[in-house]
Amino acid sequence: MSDIFTKLDALFHPKSIAFVGVSLSNPNKWTNTFWNSIREFKYEGQLYPVNPAGGELDGYKVYRTLEEVPGRVDYVIGTVPASAAPDIMRQSVRKNVSVVHFCTAGFAETGEEDVAGLQQELTRLARETGVRVIGPNCMGIYCPESRVTFDDGFAREAGTVGFISQSGGNTFYLCREAGWRGVRFSKVVSFGNACDLNESDFLEYMIDDPQTQIIGLYLESVKDGRRFLNLIREASKTKPVVLTKGGIGEAGARAAFTHTASLAGNDNVWNTLCRQFNLIRPKNMETMVDVLVTLYFMPDPGGRNFVMIGPGGGASVLFADEFERLGFRLPPLPENLRQKLLSFIRPEGRMLRNPIDVSDSIGDEQDLSRAIDVLTQWDEINFCVGFYRPSQVPIDSSAFKLQAFGDFYKAFQKAHKPMAYICESGVVPERHNVIFNIMQKFVASGIPLYYTFTGAADAISKVVEYNERRRGR
Amino acid sequence: MSDIFTKLDALFHPKSIAFVGVSLSNPNKWTNTFWNSIREFKYEGQLYPVNPAGGELDGYKVYRTLEEVPGRVDYVIGTVPASAAPDIMRQSVRKNVSVVHFCTAGFAETGEEDVAGLQQELTRLARETGVRVIGPNCMGIYCPESRVTFDDGFAREAGTVGFISQSGGNTFYLCREAGWRGVRFSKVVSFGNACDLNESDFLEYMIDDPQTQIIGLYLESVKDGRRFLNLIREASKTKPVVLTKGGIGEAGARAAFTHTASLAGNDNVWNTLCRQFNLIRPKNMETMVDVLVTLYFMPDPGGRNFVMIGPGGGASVLFADEFERLGFRLPPLPENLRQKLLSFIRPEGRMLRNPIDVSDSIGDEQDLSRAIDVLTQWDEINFCVGFYRPSQVPIDSSAFKLQAFGDFYKAFQKAHKPMAYICESGVVPERHNVIFNIMQKFVASGIPLYYTFTGAADAISKVVEYNERRRGR
Repeated sequence: MSDIFTKLDALFHPKSIAFVGVSLSNPNKWTNTFWNSIREFKYEGQLYPVNPAGGELDGYKVYRTLEEVPGRVDYVIGTVPASAAPDIMRQSVRKNVSVVHFCTAGFAETGEEDVAGLQQELTRLARETGVRVIGPNCMGIYCPESRVTFDDGFAREAGTVGFISQSGGNTFYLCREAGWRGVRFSKVVSFGNACDLNESDFLEYMIDDPQTQIIGLYLESVKDGRRFLNLIREASKTKPVVLTKGGIGEAGARAAFTHTASLAGNDNVWNTLCRQFNLIRPKNMETMVDVLVTLYFMPDPGGRNFVMIGPGGGASVLFADEFERLGFRLPPLPENLRQKLLSFIRPEGRMLRNPIDVSDSIGDEQDLSRAIDVLTQWDEINFCVGFYRPSQVPIDSSAFKLQAFGDFYKAFQKAHKPMAYICESGVVPERHNVIFNIMQKFVASGIPLYYTFTGAADAISKVVEYNERRRGR
Repeated sequence: MSDIFTKLDALFHPKSIAFVGVSLSNPNKWTNTFWNSIREFKYEGQLYPVNPAGGELDGYKVYRTLEEVPGRVDYVIGTVPASAAPDIMRQSVRKNVSVVHFCTAGFAETGEEDVAGLQQELTRLARETGVRVIGPNCMGIYCPESRVTFDDGFAREAGTVGFISQSGGNTFYLCREAGWRGVRFSKVVSFGNACDLNESDFLEYMIDDPQTQIIGLYLESVKDGRRFLNLIREASKTKPVVLTKGGIGEAGARAAFTHTASLAGNDNVWNTLCRQFNLIRPKNMETMVDVLVTLYFMPDPGGRNFVMIGPGGGASVLFADEFERLGFRLPPLPENLRQKLLSFIRPEGRMLRNPIDVSDSIGDEQDLSRAIDVLTQWDEINFCVGFYRPSQVPIDSSAFKLQAFGDFYKAFQKAHKPMAYICESGVVPERHNVIFNIMQKFVASGIPLYYTFTGAADAISKVVEYNERRRGR
């Protein structure tokens, strides 16, 4: 294990945390999210609120300064204004803190010289003293195992995805959206302006971390290209690496600068990098979520032949088109299997040649189970995609009610091949609430769930391509 | 007005409808959707349920045969089995009905010779007698003005979109999804296997129909290429035509055949057609909805320069990238406008260079109004895009609550340039229900609403390109 591994592993498992700048007068101030959510998350280490006013907060003694805190402080979360950050950093040095996370924004990303100077001061102090800094301008860490988080709505169980992000908002988005679809995380870090610890440090850690099996990155720039290149090569040898690069256009790059003071770099370089090291490159966070869901829940199908089953002829046509556009193949259903389906499905109004449109005929779990049983014993196919498009069906129809209240996910659990399920949102609340329950049943059964067929096709294609290249090496 | 216009206009406004094959024993049978929803829709003409059992249904006398109906029947909706269809057709001829809509499936699309023969018989009878047929294997018509519908959840107000579709499911999808976003329809027809009336007939009608200002088509094939070509050229001269072609791949084409007995044809031909006549070609129904929303609610921006405003740095970066990828430009905000924004927005944690990230600083309607007022007086831009990504924000945060309960749409209403608003779904029901209310306020104010930024960028790009070509003619 490298030196950085030991140091950062301690960072992800602090035994004590001081909250410098926590608001006493306004407990709902958004920067109090750290104080509130870590407690809500049942963190078991020591917590020290720090505010010059002193007094008490939620039953905890408030220390006037960091140095007043009696015990050791492993980790500082600073939510003070930018101008006060260097002083907190100096106090942290005297207190022998391991890591300071500055949530505070208003540094180099503003483009103003005086505040950029504040950030340089943090960097200088970090380099000189060895007290490491996360940020500024970021959300810091989420580590379910140690119960450190910046949102109490995140999943409390640990998983195998490590995520490294320059953007706090994209980290929120990813942890929530992937979380709702069952993905669980080992360690997550939002590192912002990276005045000290940067993407390479965290990447080096994730490579060594045995709990991290999949590495996701959202980057707007890299600080040290050569080091990053070596690490990403190393990472890609043992773990799937999923990389979204923000700031590829002119305004996107300008936004990346004003967002995290990043110089975004040439997009071709990133394309080459991804091809060379077989990185998976989703163009945005939506696709990142779809890819993580696929890697997390879908066994390698080993090929591009599949069978599709779901209600609706027009939907079947367009969904098949989309998958074919991306290089998948839906072989025609062999006559012997077609006859097996016809033993319990009437032919009128159905499509039994792949895609399989079952419309209203497969009206219960048992029939769907039988159909999926037949279809997934078909040698020629590598996987099976089921779908449901609720806005195509009247809400008071039996088809809607069956989908809603039947346990269709059970048919998927018993399949003989890798499965995927596409279930669109119901939009209107009375529909949406019902659909969400269906979705949750699939999620709880470990079936990869997608909200859109374009997203499913794109993500499965990227993962299949990744596997093809990996096997081809 | 052409002959077909007069005939089809009567079709869309029948004074009496017979429901042949309506189920008495099972009032919830899905094919009773016609009987149930037309009554629910407050149709004012004569309704005649027809079933050999006779008796009464919902207070209406049930006739044993079509010929038993005392008055004139303009329109027949047939939900009898395929084998009974020719007999219903012969009764309709004797009764001098104008049009028969066969919802019934199980004809040529099954690929079985004997049932294909049934469809040929319907065609022959139609040709010989002049009684026109819609279908078989389709949902028929939705015309809010005459209160004819196949779903009582569709909007009751009439609008300006005419939609012609080979697929019933895609018609349901479009009318609901576009309907929830404020789009209203003049006439909609799902025509299925097209054994008599086909896409060209309905297109000819829509060209002449003064209430139809935008024409949407979902096609899997065309029956008479030459006629269709002439009509689409004609249509494109006066109205925007939006065309989704299903069945472009091998399996997609196979699906199109098993769906509506269509021979899908070469995709290159369709591409050429769209370029030649400046048709807008969304690849699927999701994009079709986004395009219709744009055409319906967004005045022609006249160019590709825009300003983007919304909370979240990482989201701003990726959203800007997506729009730039499609040829849009976000010019840097001029210093004088930046200073105007700074007079009421603090710079820390914000991005004030375009995209504009207002994060938590624009915490109320009034500030957002002022910002949009400043930004949309900027000469260099053609339009303005606002966005909101709820899963990025904690549900109990003030930002979420403000977005949820403030009337932010008012800031958009007062803008000096065309506006668009991207609001993602809340996924989890407690979020979704709140978000849906926000969405509905935007929809009610006539602001184009999109659920995804990729969808918004794609649709606005397609419409801007359409306008550029139209002006270039």
